[in-house]
Amino acid sequence: MSKPYVIGIDIGGTNTVFGIVDARGMVVASSSIKTQKHSNIEDYINELYTETMRLVDANDATDKIHGIGIGAPNANYFTGIIEDGVNLPWPTPIPLAKLVSEKFGIPVAITNDANAAAIGEMTYGAARGLKDFIMITLGTGVGSGIVINGQLVYGHDGFAGELGHTIVKRNNGRLCGCGRTGCLEAYCSATGVARTAREFLEIRKDESMLRELPIEDITSKDVFDAANAGDQLAKDVFEYTGTLLGETFCDFTVFSSPQAIILFGGLAKSGEMLLKPLRNAMDKNMMGIFKGKVRVLLSELKEADAAVLGASALGWEAKPLEA
Amino acid sequence: MSKPYVIGIDIGGTNTVFGIVDARGMVVASSSIKTQKHSNIEDYINELYTETMRLVDANDATDKIHGIGIGAPNANYFTGIIEDGVNLPWPTPIPLAKLVSEKFGIPVAITNDANAAAIGEMTYGAARGLKDFIMITLGTGVGSGIVINGQLVYGHDGFAGELGHTIVKRNNGRLCGCGRTGCLEAYCSATGVARTAREFLEIRKDESMLRELPIEDITSKDVFDAANAGDQLAKDVFEYTGTLLGETFCDFTVFSSPQAIILFGGLAKSGEMLLKPLRNAMDKNMMGIFKGKVRVLLSELKEADAAVLGASALGWEAKPLEA
Repeated sequence: MSKPYVIGIDIGGTNTVFGIVDARGMVVASSSIKTQKHSNIEDYINELYTETMRLVDANDATDKIHGIGIGAPNANYFTGIIEDGVNLPWPTPIPLAKLVSEKFGIPVAITNDANAAAIGEMTYGAARGLKDFIMITLGTGVGSGIVINGQLVYGHDGFAGELGHTIVKRNNGRLCGCGRTGCLEAYCSATGVARTAREFLEIRKDESMLRELPIEDITSKDVFDAANAGDQLAKDVFEYTGTLLGETFCDFTVFSSPQAIILFGGLAKSGEMLLKPLRNAMDKNMMGIFKGKVRVLLSELKEADAAVLGASALGWEAKPLEA
Repeated sequence: MSKPYVIGIDIGGTNTVFGIVDARGMVVASSSIKTQKHSNIEDYINELYTETMRLVDANDATDKIHGIGIGAPNANYFTGIIEDGVNLPWPTPIPLAKLVSEKFGIPVAITNDANAAAIGEMTYGAARGLKDFIMITLGTGVGSGIVINGQLVYGHDGFAGELGHTIVKRNNGRLCGCGRTGCLEAYCSATGVARTAREFLEIRKDESMLRELPIEDITSKDVFDAANAGDQLAKDVFEYTGTLLGETFCDFTVFSSPQAIILFGGLAKSGEMLLKPLRNAMDKNMMGIFKGKVRVLLSELKEADAAVLGASALGWEAKPLEA
């Protein structure tokens, strides 16, 4: 193979992580820059170019890069543009694919972070060999990447797969960042777990070590630690969260009948505390013909490399810009 | 084209309708037999063969049939088998594709009735030119056929697209035919409309012409007629039904971001009585990035031909059985 490498770039609100990846999914080298350093997108891309090419040259990969894959919030695969309403320091819309491919002289493909994770998982992780699965990222928000018959679902406008914004509480639902109420994300993200803990603390009267913390400062990590230490209220928060996820996964299943739902992100590391109620809720609520068919798996991408790997996998399918 | 025709067969609980269809979607000729006449599947297929070939010969189509497409309840595209739990007079599973292709000596493809409707709509109807849409059939039950990027979604096991079994009432939901509670089908099918009317009649105290009917005998047609005559309770039943559909369509949209949702079946003919609250609920509940993007369309397949047309479209992709 004359061009045996791809570059993966994950643009997060704080850091931009990038790396050189080979066809087996090995991260040959990686580095990062601060996303917020430049208020001008051109300056940011210039620094990204300089630092990436430093890495490329140091690893004898010059002229061996097949393509660049980028994962970024609200990045649209079809248009190559980062759309409105994201936590990045530049005015949107940002024609990211065009800017990067012109600077690097290498084909670029972009997609949102959850889709990148799904592609990474399919190429290198727990979804290898699976043609029908759903990736759910449980982080600050709840993201998703849907794969059907081996293909990522983009929808007609590139925005499909916003499963975090499925309504799980039709009445009296919590306000979500999207402006509506009752979204899955408002309950089953890291933020949602903290909100549930606050709600339980206000409603219930029983003892909890979480009562020692200022209620507004409680994080999902605090809830996890308390649950791990045997705190009943904290354990109930995970029971509630896992049950909601499991119930909702049954609705996802009647849509696309996936072989597996793969969990990724901070909250996915809560282990059986989350997974046990989740699986119980799936068993209890699953439509008959799908019972026992949908596996719940954890991402197999190495934590430190996951973002870069996911984005890089898209680099293999990047095509030159049309004239 | 040496084989310019396909045969479409729609196996319903009462009638089996079949016809010869050309590449433009014209039904050259059609006929039907009684599904329940033979308790033995071989006898049924023999009669189906005899009657179909009579039609074929009469229309000078002998040796001009490219393939046979069959729509039937719980028919699995991947296996060619009609699976358990259907309202047909023969023991399941029924290896339908194999039985029919052996008898006719023509390639056969089968799928469930809602998927057949989606393929028909894409090939000949309101979804021509659309690559991302969802077909919702509002009949005795609520069925669905999902098309993403031009391809029907079958899922890993062939059972995807059971959107009638999305849970719309998590608590105190009505019992559904699938054995669970709160499914869309229990509310928004023809049967569901009748159940809603009965519920309203019991709970409310206001006048309604529906009170003149024995409550257990009320049908969706009665509710439609009453609403058309200005009956407020009956109108509220359609308001309730349309709103539930619209809310649920917003959840379907975050999954696959379709260009259109196409309604088919008896209830879809209720017109603005159903469509107005449906569209209002979509406007009110749609996630921002999808607002105003998803059209609600009515099927354009001619009522009498729809079932045959939908099934026949599958005939174009039928492949000979593997040895």
